[in-house]
Amino acid sequence: MALVARAFGANGLVLEGICDPGLGATLERVTRCWGGPFHYECGVGGRSYVREWKRRGGQVIHLTMYGLPLHRVIDEIRMDPRPKLVVVGAEKVEGFYYEEADYNVAVGPQPHSEVAALAVFLDRLLPGWWAGVEYEGARMRVVPSPRGKRVEGEC
Amino acid sequence: MALVARAFGANGLVLEGICDPGLGATLERVTRCWGGPFHYECGVGGRSYVREWKRRGGQVIHLTMYGLPLHRVIDEIRMDPRPKLVVVGAEKVEGFYYEEADYNVAVGPQPHSEVAALAVFLDRLLPGWWAGVEYEGARMRVVPSPRGKRVEGEC
Repeated sequence: MALVARAFGANGLVLEGICDPGLGATLERVTRCWGGPFHYECGVGGRSYVREWKRRGGQVIHLTMYGLPLHRVIDEIRMDPRPKLVVVGAEKVEGFYYEEADYNVAVGPQPHSEVAALAVFLDRLLPGWWAGVEYEGARMRVVPSPRGKRVEGEC
Repeated sequence: MALVARAFGANGLVLEGICDPGLGATLERVTRCWGGPFHYECGVGGRSYVREWKRRGGQVIHLTMYGLPLHRVIDEIRMDPRPKLVVVGAEKVEGFYYEEADYNVAVGPQPHSEVAALAVFLDRLLPGWWAGVEYEGARMRVVPSPRGKRVEGEC
């Protein structure tokens, strides 16, 4: 989830509940090698974070298969200038998030994957934009190629 | 991966190597409740499957961060009428697949998730098309709603 957020242009990931040391280490390694910045915060109380985000003028979008179809709301969400917090639940999501979200958005009404939902949401939010992101301080860079693996730099 | 393939309009999933009984059961439950059809095959030899796919006139697309940028090849892939086999590696992918694929495609040149790559690839292949797929024999259906969860039927 964190790597998808980073690769599709999010500024960071805020993880509710306990901190996974493995995740922190992975993100450090990825940003050291492939560039940053990427904000990572864990051990956060989800409810208070959402309330504070809204109090500071931010917008909250909760991805759920029960929400409104992506294509019906994505233009409206894109046009809204407020900083966006995208809420993605790992397992059962409390009613609080459905209530507090400015939008409950369904990336399809079928059961699939939260990771996929986040990727497609971010891709539709700013189509193709992420493909041009320059990550600062990257030590490695892929050289696109029709066959095989070409990488510039090392890490 | 299987649920993403299904939700974004793929006809099925072919899994190399050993069969995971849990996955088979999940897919049976999902297609029974949310509709089908969705082809599932496992315990398959990847190399022979790819060779046979091509021999029968199919096209092979391998998703890898080292490949050509999605936006540069997606129109060409879409226009090609051959049935498409999308190859997604779980871990290290053998050189064979890079060589045999008609296209090695990067859904971004950054490390992220194979699941996310598949979702975005399928979404870009036939943009928005998956949102209108009618799954046959569905016992349950989400009624999109701005708040909360509404489902018609039961399973």
